[in-house]
Amino acid sequence: MFRIASALLAVGALTGIIAAAAGQTHDDAAPVYGIKLPADYRDWRLISVAREEGHLDDIRAILGNDIAVKAYREGTLPFPDGAIIARLAWSYDSSEENNKVFGRVQSHVAGAPKNGVQFMVKDSRKYAATGGWGFAQFDDGKPADEAMHNTCFACHEPIRARDFVFTRYAR
Amino acid sequence: MFRIASALLAVGALTGIIAAAAGQTHDDAAPVYGIKLPADYRDWRLISVAREEGHLDDIRAILGNDIAVKAYREGTLPFPDGAIIARLAWSYDSSEENNKVFGRVQSHVAGAPKNGVQFMVKDSRKYAATGGWGFAQFDDGKPADEAMHNTCFACHEPIRARDFVFTRYAR
Repeated sequence: MFRIASALLAVGALTGIIAAAAGQTHDDAAPVYGIKLPADYRDWRLISVAREEGHLDDIRAILGNDIAVKAYREGTLPFPDGAIIARLAWSYDSSEENNKVFGRVQSHVAGAPKNGVQFMVKDSRKYAATGGWGFAQFDDGKPADEAMHNTCFACHEPIRARDFVFTRYAR
Repeated sequence: MFRIASALLAVGALTGIIAAAAGQTHDDAAPVYGIKLPADYRDWRLISVAREEGHLDDIRAILGNDIAVKAYREGTLPFPDGAIIARLAWSYDSSEENNKVFGRVQSHVAGAPKNGVQFMVKDSRKYAATGGWGFAQFDDGKPADEAMHNTCFACHEPIRARDFVFTRYAR
């Protein structure tokens, strides 16, 4: 009985592992554009910072990989293939600790991650239909759904003059 | 006459160069702590972002050199010698361009550099009197005055529990 139970447990565990692995393979690329979460994006250099009020209500940082940052600094437009721009965002938290030190209410800091992490990946052939850019959003490391990804380009399209990129480089 | 004028011009130019060089040597280290502007700070990795209202009225990014970022990520306190934390800040500008795309007033972006660039440099022996930290502010690349530098530590002192550093790492 012990052996049968163990065997069943082993089969069950194996099935679980296979399912998880299959899920992993399926889930780790964002839909529509097929972009995977870049492993090192948190190490990328800073392009700029921003704050969105309203329903987004976050404070954000825009980072770029080496190709993107070089293009920004040299004013290269359109961005070359291989450029990736990342948008990180956090809750916009009033800092009681800082305000106490300053003696007035004035300080807001980044709280928990919020509104996902978004990427624009430049590949002028692969993404020719969307200005040469692929778009991706990951929430807690997992790609957002297809409906969400279908909204990206429409919003970026008005910024055609700067190759569909909202953010300017902060000197 | 031409030769004399040329010689005088040459002497004048040389004096100017010497004066500029002397000025450079004298001015490039911040007073009190003797810190020079790190050449590569704009390439450092992101620690977090923040916004100060009131008279500062800016949006800011806190960057760290490799030693500082490693300590942050591993939760090492106090920060090891060699850690440097940089605070960059820009004017907090409403973005008409972004608001137009979003169809509502919600977007603020980084404008021109503002409130100088500030640094905390960890050297537990050299700066033993100020918690092991030296402080520096540079405005347009030039160090701020001594009076300004004498205000730094008093403001950081209440944050003793986190080695005098206000900013927490943004995951």
